Amino acid sequence: MKKFTAVQDVANLEDLVNEALHLKQNPYEYKHLGENKTLGLLFLNPSLRTRMSTQIAAVNLGMNVMVMNMDKEGWALETQDGAVMNGSTVEHIKEAAAVMGRYCDIIGIRSFPKLQNREEDYSEDLLRKFIAYCKVPVVSLESATRHPLQSFADLLTITENTPAGKRPKVVLTWAPHVKALPQCVANSFAEWMGKAEVDFVITHPEGYELADEFTGNARITTNQQEALHDADFIYVKNWSSYTDYGKVLTEGEGWMLTNEKLQSTNNGKVMHCLPVRRNVELSDEVLDGPNSLVLEQANNRTYAAQAVLKRLLENLR
Amino acid sequence: MKKFTAVQDVANLEDLVNEALHLKQNPYEYKHLGENKTLGLLFLNPSLRTRMSTQIAAVNLGMNVMVMNMDKEGWALETQDGAVMNGSTVEHIKEAAAVMGRYCDIIGIRSFPKLQNREEDYSEDLLRKFIAYCKVPVVSLESATRHPLQSFADLLTITENTPAGKRPKVVLTWAPHVKALPQCVANSFAEWMGKAEVDFVITHPEGYELADEFTGNARITTNQQEALHDADFIYVKNWSSYTDYGKVLTEGEGWMLTNEKLQSTNNGKVMHCLPVRRNVELSDEVLDGPNSLVLEQANNRTYAAQAVLKRLLENLR
Amino acid sequence: MKKFTAVQDVANLEDLVNEALHLKQNPYEYKHLGENKTLGLLFLNPSLRTRMSTQIAAVNLGMNVMVMNMDKEGWALETQDGAVMNGSTVEHIKEAAAVMGRYCDIIGIRSFPKLQNREEDYSEDLLRKFIAYCKVPVVSLESATRHPLQSFADLLTITENTPAGKRPKVVLTWAPHVKALPQCVANSFAEWMGKAEVDFVITHPEGYELADEFTGNARITTNQQEALHDADFIYVKNWSSYTDYGKVLTEGEGWMLTNEKLQSTNNGKVMHCLPVRRNVELSDEVLDGPNSLVLEQANNRTYAAQAVLKRLLENLR
Repeated sequence: MKKFTAVQDVANLEDLVNEALHLKQNPYEYKHLGENKTLGLLFLNPSLRTRMSTQIAAVNLGMNVMVMNMDKEGWALETQDGAVMNGSTVEHIKEAAAVMGRYCDIIGIRSFPKLQNREEDYSEDLLRKFIAYCKVPVVSLESATRHPLQSFADLLTITENTPAGKRPKVVLTWAPHVKALPQCVANSFAEWMGKAEVDFVITHPEGYELADEFTGNARITTNQQEALHDADFIYVKNWSSYTDYGKVLTEGEGWMLTNEKLQSTNNGKVMHCLPVRRNVELSDEVLDGPNSLVLEQANNRTYAAQAVLKRLLENLR
Repeated sequence: MKKFTAVQDVANLEDLVNEALHLKQNPYEYKHLGENKTLGLLFLNPSLRTRMSTQIAAVNLGMNVMVMNMDKEGWALETQDGAVMNGSTVEHIKEAAAVMGRYCDIIGIRSFPKLQNREEDYSEDLLRKFIAYCKVPVVSLESATRHPLQSFADLLTITENTPAGKRPKVVLTWAPHVKALPQCVANSFAEWMGKAEVDFVITHPEGYELADEFTGNARITTNQQEALHDADFIYVKNWSSYTDYGKVLTEGEGWMLTNEKLQSTNNGKVMHCLPVRRNVELSDEVLDGPNSLVLEQANNRTYAAQAVLKRLLENLR
Repeated sequence: MKKFTAVQDVANLEDLVNEALHLKQNPYEYKHLGENKTLGLLFLNPSLRTRMSTQIAAVNLGMNVMVMNMDKEGWALETQDGAVMNGSTVEHIKEAAAVMGRYCDIIGIRSFPKLQNREEDYSEDLLRKFIAYCKVPVVSLESATRHPLQSFADLLTITENTPAGKRPKVVLTWAPHVKALPQCVANSFAEWMGKAEVDFVITHPEGYELADEFTGNARITTNQQEALHDADFIYVKNWSSYTDYGKVLTEGEGWMLTNEKLQSTNNGKVMHCLPVRRNVELSDEVLDGPNSLVLEQANNRTYAAQAVLKRLLENLR
């Protein structure tokens, strides 16, 4: 593996899942692999789970970790080619990425979309340029359109909770929120489910259609009740509109997941990437109930990151 | 030891003091104890001494340390049960604490009081909930009402500077300040002195009475001169009013500690937890003079933290 | 070496250069030298290259690193002797430095000039006091008037790119910028070039004369074209006026370095400390062209820092 930005970077998904589940049982088995190797984690936006789990993953592999927060004022990166930099950007991504690539063996980068211009966000301009200029393996810690370490941890969680041989029904359901959120987690989850041995259904109110490139052959319905029927896993997530880009079209009354809605599922397990707005996206009873997998998902973030870093380390030089 | 949030968490105070003094002489003796263990340090408020000394303590024990600053905007925690989270809080402490407990073996947390509602602050709601939800040992890095790592370091400093067998006179004296400060350091120091082999006196202007639960059997007087007489240790500290909660009642003219006031003491050693406002709380001459122990107190923070972490590590699993 | 704040702290410059170049080839040879030693990095201003390269350097030597960002509100240091601290400064440098000196074996500190009062900035008050009070070896990570780790890395880069025995012509040329920048990098580079086996020329518009104490015997001209003639290395850098202190006197039309200007040089290599404002200080074509050394300069920051830390570690105790 030369980079990890999407499921397409994974040559053999089943192998990688098995690697991660093995590392979960044996986290320190490859403690010497990362000796004298440095992971740089670059945050242009806040992070808790991704920051902590990726650090742990790297340390489990014996790596040195450096964290850079650029999420505050003071280090605005220019991405435009040919820009005359007489404004507020203090450094071009050409230099910033290239320099970090000299200091680090692997770099993780998080950069959220601005949700103002769809073409710009969906071009993944910053991530692509960073990869091009830094010249070392890059791990996406969530980009404008995807959150692959989250989706990988989600797949691990589904795998662990599915009896061998069974093809589970997995439902991604839109949920209300008070802010306009990116489509990343939903896009990415859809993309990974498209490669997994699951029956995958997406449900959302009208106007919240995700881009075709991510949903692929998923079944899509605006009828949440129908979607939830017999579901084994229910992934709850808000996103803003892709078609009317970045807009919140509805308060989403009736879309919050409750225990009542779980009735028609197949004792469905409930997933969420966190942070979650309690009693807006999900009711307390669901989150605090026996069907919630949200903490195990968060826990699996470590082993998803560790499997990815292991592959990247093995491929260095 | 299963947590460290107050002197009540210490089964045998003398043992712990001896442990810390031993570690001060042999800081790397237990370098393997913390192998593959992670300490998460969570700061909801700024920190210099606590942050640095606790990191050193953990590294001396071979631990991995992760620092999370939540003191800036962007990660406001909800603590209310049943809250409908459609406001400014982005994550409930139930999830935040539980997730960190999955990533870390021990967690240190700092959260200052808001000084607006006494019941709320003194309920230690956030700390108690964090402990309940994270399910790993928690070290208080200063909470709404206590600063136990500071008090432990203070006790070490007094112990080191007291001839064997002597029972010293220790005075906690209120000092002026320009801001309304919490009662934590004073509460906590009083609580620890109550368990130590010392004669303990508290002096402050009227209206600055601390809560009985902390002062216990201490002698309390509003006459600073009388209190200082024959004192072996003088602990200088400002706090805002407990009775008229969070208020600054007086400019405190005449309460700053000076060399002149040290005259009547028993060549009294001067203590302060730092940071100190020079020439407001203490005069330059005292801080720069031979009786000041403030730097040794700060130094002892490392070994207080190390003894606590050692006990918590030994009790894991 | 007891501190590293200027070229004057280096006893034998050639030895130190050779040490750094040796470490570049053998970065992990002294991995045990820094065992159980802590480097504290204190940033009163933002940093990317210095922060990352110094961390890597320390880790290569087996040190533990702690980073403190004081560049945001909340920890303003008082430096005035005798100050009555009833204002906005929360801690005196006497305590802050002394405490950090108890926790760390070596301390790096970055503090930019305010560019308001020349006497104040050029007195290096904060750096001198920090050194005096912390009592452990200090590395300047850029101070009010110098950036010695940068200059050392610059000298390494020039050395690597000069045939043995040749005395290269090195030109420091002022460049336009949109902000008022310190003179540090230019001062420091001039000071180091004054000790190196090079012919050194400085060129800048009238009014941008640097202080004599830094330029020494350098040839100085306001004719950029004449200065660039036959140059082997061209160091491009903006600085604000020293004489009309901290002011931007001109937009600097015609001073940006372009490929056309490189024509008259001896196939001159182009240097810049970064971050660089593209198409303001330097044109894209130069930065992206074969004569640019800017990334190698950044890379050499690690080995400059590592050679300095190695010397300081060897001199401990």
